[in-house]
Amino acid sequence: MNQSVKDIAAHVGGSIIGNPETTITGLNGIREAQSGELTFLGSPQYASFMKTTQASAIFVPRDIDTPHPTAALIQVDTPYAAFAMMLQMLEKEMRVHPTGQHPTAVIGDNVTLGENVNLDAHVRLADNCTIGSNVTLYAGVYIGRNSVIGDDTIIYSNTSIREWVSIGKRCLIHSNVAIGTDGFGFTPMDGKIMKIPQVGTVEIGDDVEIGSNTAIDRATCGKTVIGSGTKIDNMVQIGHNVVIGENTTISGAVAIAGSTTVGSGVTIGGMAGLNGHIDIGDNVMIAGASRVTHSIPPNQMVSGAPAVKHTLGRKIIMSLKRLPELLRRVRVLEKRLEQMEDKDNG
Amino acid sequence: MNQSVKDIAAHVGGSIIGNPETTITGLNGIREAQSGELTFLGSPQYASFMKTTQASAIFVPRDIDTPHPTAALIQVDTPYAAFAMMLQMLEKEMRVHPTGQHPTAVIGDNVTLGENVNLDAHVRLADNCTIGSNVTLYAGVYIGRNSVIGDDTIIYSNTSIREWVSIGKRCLIHSNVAIGTDGFGFTPMDGKIMKIPQVGTVEIGDDVEIGSNTAIDRATCGKTVIGSGTKIDNMVQIGHNVVIGENTTISGAVAIAGSTTVGSGVTIGGMAGLNGHIDIGDNVMIAGASRVTHSIPPNQMVSGAPAVKHTLGRKIIMSLKRLPELLRRVRVLEKRLEQMEDKDNG
Amino acid sequence: MNQSVKDIAAHVGGSIIGNPETTITGLNGIREAQSGELTFLGSPQYASFMKTTQASAIFVPRDIDTPHPTAALIQVDTPYAAFAMMLQMLEKEMRVHPTGQHPTAVIGDNVTLGENVNLDAHVRLADNCTIGSNVTLYAGVYIGRNSVIGDDTIIYSNTSIREWVSIGKRCLIHSNVAIGTDGFGFTPMDGKIMKIPQVGTVEIGDDVEIGSNTAIDRATCGKTVIGSGTKIDNMVQIGHNVVIGENTTISGAVAIAGSTTVGSGVTIGGMAGLNGHIDIGDNVMIAGASRVTHSIPPNQMVSGAPAVKHTLGRKIIMSLKRLPELLRRVRVLEKRLEQMEDKDNG
Repeated sequence: MNQSVKDIAAHVGGSIIGNPETTITGLNGIREAQSGELTFLGSPQYASFMKTTQASAIFVPRDIDTPHPTAALIQVDTPYAAFAMMLQMLEKEMRVHPTGQHPTAVIGDNVTLGENVNLDAHVRLADNCTIGSNVTLYAGVYIGRNSVIGDDTIIYSNTSIREWVSIGKRCLIHSNVAIGTDGFGFTPMDGKIMKIPQVGTVEIGDDVEIGSNTAIDRATCGKTVIGSGTKIDNMVQIGHNVVIGENTTISGAVAIAGSTTVGSGVTIGGMAGLNGHIDIGDNVMIAGASRVTHSIPPNQMVSGAPAVKHTLGRKIIMSLKRLPELLRRVRVLEKRLEQMEDKDNG
Repeated sequence: MNQSVKDIAAHVGGSIIGNPETTITGLNGIREAQSGELTFLGSPQYASFMKTTQASAIFVPRDIDTPHPTAALIQVDTPYAAFAMMLQMLEKEMRVHPTGQHPTAVIGDNVTLGENVNLDAHVRLADNCTIGSNVTLYAGVYIGRNSVIGDDTIIYSNTSIREWVSIGKRCLIHSNVAIGTDGFGFTPMDGKIMKIPQVGTVEIGDDVEIGSNTAIDRATCGKTVIGSGTKIDNMVQIGHNVVIGENTTISGAVAIAGSTTVGSGVTIGGMAGLNGHIDIGDNVMIAGASRVTHSIPPNQMVSGAPAVKHTLGRKIIMSLKRLPELLRRVRVLEKRLEQMEDKDNG
Repeated sequence: MNQSVKDIAAHVGGSIIGNPETTITGLNGIREAQSGELTFLGSPQYASFMKTTQASAIFVPRDIDTPHPTAALIQVDTPYAAFAMMLQMLEKEMRVHPTGQHPTAVIGDNVTLGENVNLDAHVRLADNCTIGSNVTLYAGVYIGRNSVIGDDTIIYSNTSIREWVSIGKRCLIHSNVAIGTDGFGFTPMDGKIMKIPQVGTVEIGDDVEIGSNTAIDRATCGKTVIGSGTKIDNMVQIGHNVVIGENTTISGAVAIAGSTTVGSGVTIGGMAGLNGHIDIGDNVMIAGASRVTHSIPPNQMVSGAPAVKHTLGRKIIMSLKRLPELLRRVRVLEKRLEQMEDKDNG
């Protein structure tokens, strides 16, 4: 990027304190920013970095009006939102998606393509699948038979979407993701392990983001569901028949076992694990590394292994560190009590 | 699917109570099933759902003989097994594998192909590999030099099988799996980290299923082994020189460190972690999220972090929730005892 | 391999006790080695296996000079290092990398290729990327726009390197890895979840090894950094803006949340989890399955969940097993004290 503070202020609706002709060539956090870069004051707790930042321009709240010794200030309503607008502008500049249909892309029979479908090299569309308009599939993406990809969705390289899967509009699916692979369903039979065929599907809503190396299994019967607006990080394992609501965020390395339902507006921290066949209510917050073994009613925060209400979970965590000391104290108590009893009986 | 209750009963050897002409168009669980769908009564604990299910037909045990107000009943020996037979029938209908050898598949020198090998687009077979009869490789599958794939095995899209790996017959390997990548072997040398070359292999038996995004490392020397009939879920990490027996099931997001042996008939719950260089006996059950730090003799059930016998592990889990309370109680005890001692000495 | 003990001794600078004409056809551990194989005595604790090993030759320390009844001994300074040299020799024999540029590899516009670049089938190089000399890319590798791959680096099949990523020299990147995918950055906005565009990059040093199915996210702004000589195992999740020093080793299934820094010479055990926005000092050792929730100063060893100094962490682990017993003991104490108090007041 290469823009003047004046142009940037105009773009975000901000007022300038300082030199409007300062040239901005990049964006960065307030601690990391170098000369030539634009940053932002996200919260008052970062105010001390205003003195040390090397940035050449800073988005600040409108109530900050003291000129900065080295940086131009741009007063805005919400510095973080203004910065996000600049990130979006920079992203458009830096991220150039493949266009057109590369001759090495292989398209099966009875495939329906919308307008302006972009297929990079070595894409494989199996028979009977439907690709919406403005969809972009990066190199090595595989779309299985009878699957449907909604308009404006982008799928990055080497991701596998299996058969009969439905993905909504404006989704962003990163690299090496596997969606619609068989659920893990087996039953003992005559001393061996018989496979339960997995004939259900996966249905993913609109505006869903799915991180790299994540796996979402198809249902045994019926559907595994990811609701619209839900965001899933890297390396998340989602079992068969899991149903997740809307606008839920799931951080990296989480695993959700089969047939569990997760509500809308839920937040699941990194590395948390959820048992199968439980129900997580709307707006529940699950702390990172929790082991959720039972259903959670809406609007609760839980933590720990096993997960309990966070108010208790925090106390358990703090108490754990004192456990060896507690053992010692109980030993001392036993000895002292014994002495008293001896004395008492002596 | 589109079948009459009469045809279905004939297929599974069942007796009909109700309308044999009812048309069945799908399969589903007893709670989820809608009109037109067939379900099953898997265990007595689901009996209450018999009243509320919307299913049009239900597999029931032979001792249930009261007609259902809305659904046709099909009496069978084992409802779950009958339902699995129907799932298999539906799977054949829904899952159409690629056939033939796509012209974009690239086959190296000295490759041996069995009869009826199906290679989808952009498959890569490196030199000297051997592909059995009726093998199906989906788009983007890579088979390394000198590797061997047994008859009737299916490997889904974008999976990587490295060199000198051997995979048995009738295996099912899902998408984006990595088998035969280097074990994690290093040794400090002159302040840097020297790589120990990983020149062993991986040997996978017959009837093994491997979930998507799972990684199985090759041995340093010798072999990493997965026994016949073993089923591995998604995102499981198996280190170098691990040896796993037959008919063992490993749920999602498990990690097994190098040189550990796991017996036959073992069950490992999701997100469990096993240390390296330990031995897990036959028929051991490891609860989900356990951390197994030492060898386990056969036929035990363990749980917890660190894993202990499940009878103790359950008590620890229950006790943990009471730990903050326990701290308080010990504080009270200390105070009371002090008062008594003061009184006693006063 | 097929070499005489004499040739092997010459290769590693060793002295032979036994038959120099013994033929060696393979390498293996001292317990697993069969007739015809060469092994090594790595540490005195394995000395008892000298009696039972089936190996035909053994690297031993120079102070062992008693002839072996069945095996030729080769005296060397460091048996493990000598064995590693043989592993390297065997690796060169067994691992034949693809050579040349396969006609199905697709090379974008303005791509810069060094000398002797090897591109296997179905490789995709996007526009403006730079590939160093002697680089080998296996089948299905994707390199994004403007990315740079250093000399002598090898990337295995189906790995995705996204745009604007920089990878150093002599790196080894295994299969199905995703590098440079979007960081997990969102902010609530009008009841929905707004994406924070991720416009930073990933910078990976020289001599880095990255295991299969690992994911390393690009930074929001600035860089995610992996220092030279660092080794990362399979299925490791590294969040945006994480900075890792040099010669650090990270075992399988570890997750590191965004903006955390990890020093040089750090060792992270398998399945450990690190919170975001914390700093791990140089030479810290983090035990497997730890949950690191706060910054750790240099040269410490930590363990547990939450992670504490290992000396305390070990005690907590040991105490945990006694927690149910402790509850009982406190109940008994309460009863006994109550009796004493009653007596005292009675």
